[in-house]
Order: sequence, then structure tokens, then C-alpha cells
Amino acid sequence: MAEAVGQVRERFAAISDLGRARALLFWDERTKMPPGGAEARAEQVATVARIRHELLTSEELAELLRRAGEEVSGEPRDSDDAALVRVGLRESGKARRVPVELRAELTRSASVGERAWVGARENSDFAAFLPHLERNVGLAREYVECFAPYEHPYDPLLDDYEPGMRTAELRPVLERLRDGLGPLLARLADAQPPDDACLYGSFPLGAQQELAERIIDDLPIPAGERRLDETVHPFAVAIAPSDLRITTRFDVSYVGTALWSVLHEAGHAMYENGVAPELARSPLGHGLSLGFHESQSRLWENWVGRSRPYLGHLLPTVRDVFGDAFASVDAEQLYRAANRVRPSLIRVEADEATYNLHIILRFELEVALFTGELEPADLPEAWNARMRDDLGVDVPDDAAGVLQDVHWAGGAFGYFPTYALGNVIAGQLWELARAELPELDAQIAGGELEPLREWLRERLHRHGAKLEPAEMIERLTGGPLDPAPLLRQLEAKYADVYSLA
Amino acid sequence: MAEAVGQVRERFAAISDLGRARALLFWDERTKMPPGGAEARAEQVATVARIRHELLTSEELAELLRRAGEEVSGEPRDSDDAALVRVGLRESGKARRVPVELRAELTRSASVGERAWVGARENSDFAAFLPHLERNVGLAREYVECFAPYEHPYDPLLDDYEPGMRTAELRPVLERLRDGLGPLLARLADAQPPDDACLYGSFPLGAQQELAERIIDDLPIPAGERRLDETVHPFAVAIAPSDLRITTRFDVSYVGTALWSVLHEAGHAMYENGVAPELARSPLGHGLSLGFHESQSRLWENWVGRSRPYLGHLLPTVRDVFGDAFASVDAEQLYRAANRVRPSLIRVEADEATYNLHIILRFELEVALFTGELEPADLPEAWNARMRDDLGVDVPDDAAGVLQDVHWAGGAFGYFPTYALGNVIAGQLWELARAELPELDAQIAGGELEPLREWLRERLHRHGAKLEPAEMIERLTGGPLDPAPLLRQLEAKYADVYSLA
Repeated sequence: MAEAVGQVRERFAAISDLGRARALLFWDERTKMPPGGAEARAEQVATVARIRHELLTSEELAELLRRAGEEVSGEPRDSDDAALVRVGLRESGKARRVPVELRAELTRSASVGERAWVGARENSDFAAFLPHLERNVGLAREYVECFAPYEHPYDPLLDDYEPGMRTAELRPVLERLRDGLGPLLARLADAQPPDDACLYGSFPLGAQQELAERIIDDLPIPAGERRLDETVHPFAVAIAPSDLRITTRFDVSYVGTALWSVLHEAGHAMYENGVAPELARSPLGHGLSLGFHESQSRLWENWVGRSRPYLGHLLPTVRDVFGDAFASVDAEQLYRAANRVRPSLIRVEADEATYNLHIILRFELEVALFTGELEPADLPEAWNARMRDDLGVDVPDDAAGVLQDVHWAGGAFGYFPTYALGNVIAGQLWELARAELPELDAQIAGGELEPLREWLRERLHRHGAKLEPAEMIERLTGGPLDPAPLLRQLEAKYADVYSLA
Repeated sequence: MAEAVGQVRERFAAISDLGRARALLFWDERTKMPPGGAEARAEQVATVARIRHELLTSEELAELLRRAGEEVSGEPRDSDDAALVRVGLRESGKARRVPVELRAELTRSASVGERAWVGARENSDFAAFLPHLERNVGLAREYVECFAPYEHPYDPLLDDYEPGMRTAELRPVLERLRDGLGPLLARLADAQPPDDACLYGSFPLGAQQELAERIIDDLPIPAGERRLDETVHPFAVAIAPSDLRITTRFDVSYVGTALWSVLHEAGHAMYENGVAPELARSPLGHGLSLGFHESQSRLWENWVGRSRPYLGHLLPTVRDVFGDAFASVDAEQLYRAANRVRPSLIRVEADEATYNLHIILRFELEVALFTGELEPADLPEAWNARMRDDLGVDVPDDAAGVLQDVHWAGGAFGYFPTYALGNVIAGQLWELARAELPELDAQIAGGELEPLREWLRERLHRHGAKLEPAEMIERLTGGPLDPAPLLRQLEAKYADVYSLA
């Protein structure tokens, strides 16, 4: 009966396999590849990506999707077949809108831009980077036009990471988040910060590696379905739902990098691990958006990983691994140290609260770039002014300012807001989890992390990419995206940690 | 001008990239992949292989090759363009001869056969394996018929590994090798064998790993172009000519596994590393045949690695790594221990001399299977009889006999003789190298391995797959394949080690 659906499924299985092969090329490049492999690796990745793209945009697939659409027309929206056809059509349709030449130019310009950025950041030389940035923005504007008509020129960019999400929905959410964080951070600025000295010192690499391994071993991810490796910029990637590659890095003078980075990446990995097996090798077989993915990493990093029960549970391991360094640190001290707020220059080093302000700043600058209110040349000035206004921080040079992130160098516009979205969604999920799992704190304190994971799997993970973000939020919470739970819980935590009235 | 040649080159570049991606999937599966990835990995490998095959057999490529053939018709046979078109045409033409259904069946049957073999070998149950073997032989016979007319039914199988080589050429070479080895081994059987006790004992894993790393560091392979990892069945694979993956395994009770296995795999890696950069991403960008590849691994393993000068050079490292265990072993003892001959049951554990008899036995049984003189059911009896006649060894059960190798389970017929060919070619090359590099022994004794590597690169490696085996042998030695140099050098060595008259 559903003959075209079967063929669609088969074609997307091959597309998925090539995507996974590309993921392995990526993982290997960043963890194992000898430097001599770099040039050939770029060609290998480009070829696999090109062939994957050809399969995705082929006329035959488009025709099969049309026929499959008729076959599933009576089925419920979230049946496996209907979702396959809908999401397949979306991905293929988006890919077919972009001319081959523009796509090649976007790829080339991103690669050239990233190389130029490395040097520009080293020398804090925005002028040297500007022509590349202008080129990337110009190409991204052309890309946006492929999706005309649109409600807002930023929408097509956002949609690549958050299917179906519109700027008009996202902007008020982030504004409410910023408006809520402002007064909270002002109160914290006047309070006595917790002492986080125990996180700084000299932590031998071998001990940190052991800590990271033990943290992972303690999490509810089957040992035969993941591995942990070192890299420069940590990430997690699924070569298959049961073949997860978590990576981390170690900073000998700060133990937090290893600890929370591992939990963060493991959160991503658990999401992929929880997708229903029947969705594998399809466009539904992974997390539904970058924002939702980040909600999982943030939930494990911040709401589990910086909680009193978890850190109480972890402390014996920390002591065991580092010996004397933690002998006199108690669980309460560790918990307070883990939750110190400190406005800073660099996004990737920011605490859980001020991090969102870094993102909102970038989001608003990006939107202005695509409405035409701002040109790339104006970015440093706008950046520095916002850092002063929003975070009260003076930017000493562009290396520590507008040049700090690789995203724009690689042409990734619309990506940044997914980080803050992740925090917002994690806040909503965490409030819900605490309500529905009344024993959660006690379970975590006892090292029982499985119930939380099962709850996440049942409510979110197993559905893969069958729903769009807005639908999933509605299904989970009965309402829309909402920063209030995040704000409520941050307020409660800091009231405790900072002993606010 | 050479417009079709350019397009041929581009298409083979993509085919090569997919082959390299498949090589990474293979390497990762055997060194890094969590077990949970196995099922998805099989699909990924199959998809990448299928798409590569589709590109290789496409009508467009066949047409381009025809046009390119005209463009290069006036060029010398070993010009880059002429060789590209000739070897490209050969690969594409061979692939196009085999119906898609037969190829799928060969792949499927190999995979089922390998799984069945694991269990059959464990239980030494040839009867359980027989139906799979019969199926594999039947399919391989069908495969052979795709290449009719042929001089000998074994030729098409052999040709997959040794381009252009015929059974009629190979058989007398192997017969002369066996006829030469017989009397030599008989003399050794009557002589006092060297004491190799120093190779057996208890060698901590960490120390063996260090030895392996130091052996590799000492070889003339750039540090930024290779890595060493552990696996179950050692292999080497090139993800690119400057991205080499050497693997090894360790046996805590026998130090020779690590030592000579590392040199063996490094020999393969150096071959790939030496191919001229302009041949990369083409069907010319790798070693020219399995036999020639094996000649490189054997040359480094046996002719360098078991030589008096090399072992004298290595001994301080061995002592440094293992401490007391080698404190009282001198270079002469180590050299003699490394060259003990001992007829045995298992091919992969055989010494350098008797190894060839294991191969010749398999070769002759394979040939008989394809001429129809032998049926799969008759293999155990034939095997055991030959083991008694050729090696003087009684086979206690099929697990230690006909079931010991995976090759037939995986449908790989025609592969075995390349091992013995490797020894023959290594013998010819080694005799030549010693004649052309008069300081070779002194260089090796001083740890200078670069001159040998340069000689091999200049004479062999840089040409990649531009020539067929017979042409290359002729160019190197001025004559045909010849087992005499191997026999001469084995005789000289054993006369020394065994103090024969």
C-alpha cells in the first residue's frame, strides 16, 4: 500500500547513513586524526556532504515524497509515516530552494572566513576580519531571499536550527528573560558572593581524566554505547543512537571545565540515546532542534550538575580522585562554589545566569544585521556598548569582544539564540520534572539518575524529531515557550546560595 | 584539451573519498567504536560502499572513460593521465561485469558466513560451517563466470588482488618456493634450534605499549602523519597518504607479537605514505597489489626486524622498557631467538619460513575448489593430509585446521597467495636493496632507517598503482617473479642462526 513511503524511508536511510559517516569524519578529525590528515579530510567531508545533498535534493526523491504525501494523507500528524514524509519534505524542500552555486559559495566562504578569523582573533584585528564577515553576511542575506516571502528576514536563518520558530515568537521570550535577569543580577551584585576558591588550583590531568570517566560511568548511559575522548572545543555526537561520542577538555587550574563540560555533553548524548529505535536512519532519528538539544545538556549540566543533591553525591568521588585538595571541602561549599555568578567578557566562560545576556546580545545584533539596521562594520561599537549596558563589563579589545566566537566566521547566523532557548526550555522541563518526580532530589542525592532519565526519555527523547519545538513545548507544558520557570528557579537558587532576603 | 580526462579525475576523486570514508568506518569499528554501534555501522559501511559502487559503475563514467581513452591515446603508458584512464577503466570495467544482484548476494553471504564461522570455529564444528562454505564457493564460481572467457577459473579471483596475474604464472613460483623450502626445513629439523626463551615470559602491557610506540617513533614515518592503536587482528590502513592508522595487539606472555606486528603494519603504512602526492584521490593513489603491499610489511618485519643489525640497535630500547627481563640477553641471543623455525598448526603464528607452506596449502586447495577437483565437503581431509605431508604436523581438530582462518568464511578466495607473493617479492627487493645500498647493514645498526625507506620510495612507493605487479617486478629486477632470492637469503640466514655446515 504505502509503497512510496517505503521508498522514501529507504532513501532517507542512505541520506542518514552518509550523515553519520560525516559525523564520524568530524569526530575523528577533532579527537584522533594526525595533523597530516587535515587536507584530505576536508575533501572527504566535502564529498560525503555533496553526495548527501544530491540525494536529498534529487528530483526522484521529490516525486516520491509527493506520492508518499498522498499515501499518508489520512494518518495522524505524529504517526511514524506521516512524520517521516512531513519532515522529509521539509528537509528536501529547504535544500532544493538554495541554488547549488550559492550553497557552494556559502561553504567556501565559511571555510575561508574561519581561517581568517583565527588570525584576526589572535591579533585582535577586526579590520582584517571585516571583509570576510561582510561576505558571510551578504551570502546569508542571499540565502534568506531563497525563502521569500517571509515574515521576518531572520526567520529563515532561525528555522535552520529551530524548525518552524519565528523571530516574532522568540524575541519576546528573550526580552522577558533579559528583563527578569536584570533585577536579579543587580541584587546579586550587591550581595556577598560565595567562595569558589575550591574549584581553582592545580588539578593533575590524570586525576581529572579519572573524574570525567567516573562521572560518565555514573550516568544512565549504557557503557557499551558511548566513549569519552579529549578535544579542544568539547562536543557530543551520535554516530548512531547507541554509538555516542562524548568529548571534553581539561584545564589543570580549574576543575569546573571537566566536571560540568562532561555533564553538558553527556546531556546531549542521552538525548540521542533515547530516540526510539524505529526512528533510526530517518530524518526523525535525532533531537528535534538545537534549542531542545541544548535544553538537555543544560539540564544535566546546571539543574542536575550544580544541584545540592548531585554535588553531595559526587563529593566522595571528587575527594577520592583529588585527595587532599578536597579533603576539607564539604558538600555545601562545593554547591555554593558551583553557583557563583560573575559577569564576564567571554561567553563560554560565563555562569548559568549571565550566559543568557551574552546570547541575547548576539541575537539582537544578528537580527539588526538582517533587518539592515546594522552593518558588519558597526558591530564592535554596538557590541561594546551592549556589554557595558547589559553586563556592566568593559571590553578591552575585539579579541575579547566581537571576535571571540567562531559562529559568524563560519557563516552560522541564527544559531546563537538556541543556547538561550536551551536554558529556557531546560527551566520549563526542570520545573515539570520536579513536580512529576516528587522523589527527584532524594534520588539524585542517592546517585539514582535513572528515574530522571526515564522521565526525559518518555516525555521527550523517544519522539526524536517528530514534532516541531512549539508543538513539543505545548505537549509537554500545555503552554508556549516561557522564561518564567527558568527565572523562578534561578531566583530561588540564588536566594539560597547568596542568602538573599 | 584533455577535458574528459579532467572529468574522469574528478569522478575518481569522489570515488576515492568515499573509499577513504569507508576506511575510517572500518578503522573506527576495530579500534574505537563502542559495541553498541555495530549494527548501525554495518548499514553505514554498506551505504557508503553501495554509493561508491554506483559511481564506479555509472554509464556516465564509462562514457567519460571511453572519451578520455581517446584523449590519452598518444601518451606513454605510465604517464599520470594514461595510467589514470587505464586503471580507472580496469576498475570500472570489472565492477560493471558483475550483476548488482550477485554482488549483493556475495556481500550478504560473506557477512552471514563470517558470523557462522565464529561459532563453528569455537565448537570445531565443520559440519555447521559447511553449508555456508558451499554457498560462498558457489557464489564465487558464479562470480568467476562473469569474467569468462578466462585461461583458468582461478584467474578472475586472483586478479582482484594481483592485477593481471595469472594462475599459470603464480603456480610455478609457489611450487619452486615449496620445493626449495622442503630440504631447508628438513636440515633445520635435524639441527639444534636456537633458544628463544627470552621472548616468552610476562611482559606488562604498559611496557609493551611503550616499546611499540618507541619502535614506531624510530621508523621514518613523520610523527604528524600516523597513529598507533590497539585492536584484535592487527592491520594498517591509510585514511590518506599522510593519515596512517597502524594497529597492533599485545600478548602479555610473548613479546614478539607486539614487536614484529608493529614493524609489519608500519611497513604497509610506509608504502601508502610514499605514494606520490599527485596520485592522491585517484585509483593510482595506493599500493599496486596486495602482494606488493605484503612485500613491504614482510620486508620491515622479517628482513629488517629480524636482522642482526636492527635487533642490536633495538636492544637498548627493549632493555629500557622491560628492565630486568632483558638485562642478561645480548644482541646475538635476541637475533637467534627471533629466527627460530618451528613447524606449527596455525598460520598467523608461523615463522617466516614455514609460513609459506601454510599459504601454498591454501592456494592449492582453493585452485582445486575452482577447477572442481575438490568440493567444500572434502576440505578437512585434504587439509589434514597436506599439513602432515608439508609441515609434518598432525591436526587435532578442525578449529586448529581448516576452520582457523576467516577468509573463506568471508568469501575471500584468491587472497591467500598474496601473502606468499609478499614474501617472494620481499626476498627479491631485499637482495636488490642490499646490492644497491652497500652501507645498509651499518645504517640499520646505527638506527638510520631513512636510506632504506628512500630507496623503497624511489623504486616502488611513489609509483602508486601505475604499474601491474609483473611490470613492476620486471622494472625493479629486470626479470620475472622469482622465489630464488628469498630461498637464498633464508638459507644464508638459517645457516648462520642454526650453525649449519
